Amino acid sequence: MDDVRFAVLGTGGIGRRTLDVSREKDGLTPVAACDRNGVAVDHDGLDVDELLEATEGNIASGPGDEVATDGGAKAATAEGDGVKQHGDEAGIVASAQGEPTETPIDDVIAESDAIDAVLIALPNLEHDFIPRVAERFADADYEGVLVDVLKRSRVIGMLDDREETLKESGITFVCGAGATPGFLTGAAALAAQSFVEVEAVEIWWGVGLKSGYEDNRGTVREDIAHLDGYDIETAREMTEAEIEELIDEHDGVLEFHDMEHADDVLLERAGVCDAEDVTVGGVLDVRSDEKPTTTTVSVTGRTFDGERGTNTFQLDDATSMEANVNGPALGYLKAGVRNNRAGHYGVFGPADLMPGF
Amino acid sequence: MDDVRFAVLGTGGIGRRTLDVSREKDGLTPVAACDRNGVAVDHDGLDVDELLEATEGNIASGPGDEVATDGGAKAATAEGDGVKQHGDEAGIVASAQGEPTETPIDDVIAESDAIDAVLIALPNLEHDFIPRVAERFADADYEGVLVDVLKRSRVIGMLDDREETLKESGITFVCGAGATPGFLTGAAALAAQSFVEVEAVEIWWGVGLKSGYEDNRGTVREDIAHLDGYDIETAREMTEAEIEELIDEHDGVLEFHDMEHADDVLLERAGVCDAEDVTVGGVLDVRSDEKPTTTTVSVTGRTFDGERGTNTFQLDDATSMEANVNGPALGYLKAGVRNNRAGHYGVFGPADLMPGF
Repeated sequence: MDDVRFAVLGTGGIGRRTLDVSREKDGLTPVAACDRNGVAVDHDGLDVDELLEATEGNIASGPGDEVATDGGAKAATAEGDGVKQHGDEAGIVASAQGEPTETPIDDVIAESDAIDAVLIALPNLEHDFIPRVAERFADADYEGVLVDVLKRSRVIGMLDDREETLKESGITFVCGAGATPGFLTGAAALAAQSFVEVEAVEIWWGVGLKSGYEDNRGTVREDIAHLDGYDIETAREMTEAEIEELIDEHDGVLEFHDMEHADDVLLERAGVCDAEDVTVGGVLDVRSDEKPTTTTVSVTGRTFDGERGTNTFQLDDATSMEANVNGPALGYLKAGVRNNRAGHYGVFGPADLMPGF
Repeated sequence: MDDVRFAVLGTGGIGRRTLDVSREKDGLTPVAACDRNGVAVDHDGLDVDELLEATEGNIASGPGDEVATDGGAKAATAEGDGVKQHGDEAGIVASAQGEPTETPIDDVIAESDAIDAVLIALPNLEHDFIPRVAERFADADYEGVLVDVLKRSRVIGMLDDREETLKESGITFVCGAGATPGFLTGAAALAAQSFVEVEAVEIWWGVGLKSGYEDNRGTVREDIAHLDGYDIETAREMTEAEIEELIDEHDGVLEFHDMEHADDVLLERAGVCDAEDVTVGGVLDVRSDEKPTTTTVSVTGRTFDGERGTNTFQLDDATSMEANVNGPALGYLKAGVRNNRAGHYGVFGPADLMPGF
């Protein structure tokens, strides 16, 4: 496969780390990046060292970035690192490669003939924000790959609604390509291959968030909606003090069961199992950076010879959420490019890109 | 993706089970099967029930099938089930769908315009037997997928030597697509995505073989070559009595370290790690059907943020070697078809078909 030239929309945590991680591998050339105030384009490859250094602790972001609303924007904003600064001088324009702009996404679209793939690492404040971004690329007849790292089931539905438009343009959209649902549903699809029928997929995650707590208050609020006795509305209406009180009651450790994540619909669409057979839960510790539990994917099924078993995939506690988002996101991006070049257009979940029978 | 029409060369254990397992999934239609005496073709789909019933305990095979010589034919012959019978009336010709033939492979090649993929489940007695079969398909300008489930490194080299010929014909050859190296190197490639650098991949398998011991004497002999103090030559020269004595000394449980398997070269070619960082070992118990150890893939690496960790993938002890060969083989076959239809020709290892960055 030839080199992949990619762009990043958004230079918060995920956008920055994607640029960072891409330096570790050959064949992945970042050629464009933007944030809300600026854009940097170099088709010979951005100087990532300079860009990251100039923008460190200096991320152009708006007040909305910390408001996560329903289990989705978490993936796009939760892992912001550095101190956020607002204002016209913040972000990419602080880099020698950056140019100020009022139309950053359009500026990237204008260059997209020479871009194989675009990682959309923007906060998805409204449910249809990223689907609408995809539409803008389609309106410009972009032929290439778009990748998001969201986990909201309803965003996938909104992408599906636009599938014909994406196909006509020649876009391969890979949705949910971060740690979860991306990495973990991919593992589930792989583990399922021992079985002729999958009875249950259990996804259980652990996150330690002490040093990232301040940056992730929106995420924590969003997660609270999954606790017994709470929903999105009640969690949204809680004051900061009420949230702190709740966290105190739990000694900083919140345990979640039966979460609504896109993992279920993504595994069903890949033919691995029925959505109702997927359960997602986990433990969040806001007072420690150690993971409170080991992230584990368990796939239980029936073999062709009548046995029943459970295959498991476990991530080492030492691997951060960030490491488990960015490697898979780039892996699925490259898999998306292979599919795009093969003329496979439309909306794909991570598990769709795995071998499976 | 449209339906996949496939053929099976060889109706020993793997060939029969591939037909068996394909019944469990939509979109996989077996249209041809052959053994050394006969061929069955139906482009509307073979009647697998009839074929399996008619040939049960009645597999056409030659005396060579039980002679595995160097760590490879194991995958193709080790799991023979049923009582082998020799002679002209054995095998596919016993089915109402079967026709006697002296040129079974050529007969399948003659039908190959309407065949998307061919699983080669023949014993690979000489190292270059399967590469030569691939060449015959290429000579007939076959455009489609060939899959083997071997584990010999040197066969991969021989396929590579023929890569131009395969490409010219339009063949996508997926090699080593069974449990090991296929399933387990695929898992290693997936697990590697947490890391920007993989330091070690350890593959550790367990097999319980009591009920299959008689059918797998060749495999056991082959495995003995991997024990300390033995090599292929010395193992080949042992008498049956000497082998039994050795097994008695070990109470039926043989433990292997640093085995020569194709896993290392397949992971290196997929860019996951250097071949020398891969170790393969395992435990074989010929006196129990319980697995003596849990099959585990451990991938140790360095994350972008400087941590070091080990991700693991484990197969439930209840999943048989057979279940872990046939699901992945069909999964890689389908992935091969996706690639073939996209114009990706040549030689691919299982890990090449995984998302990875």
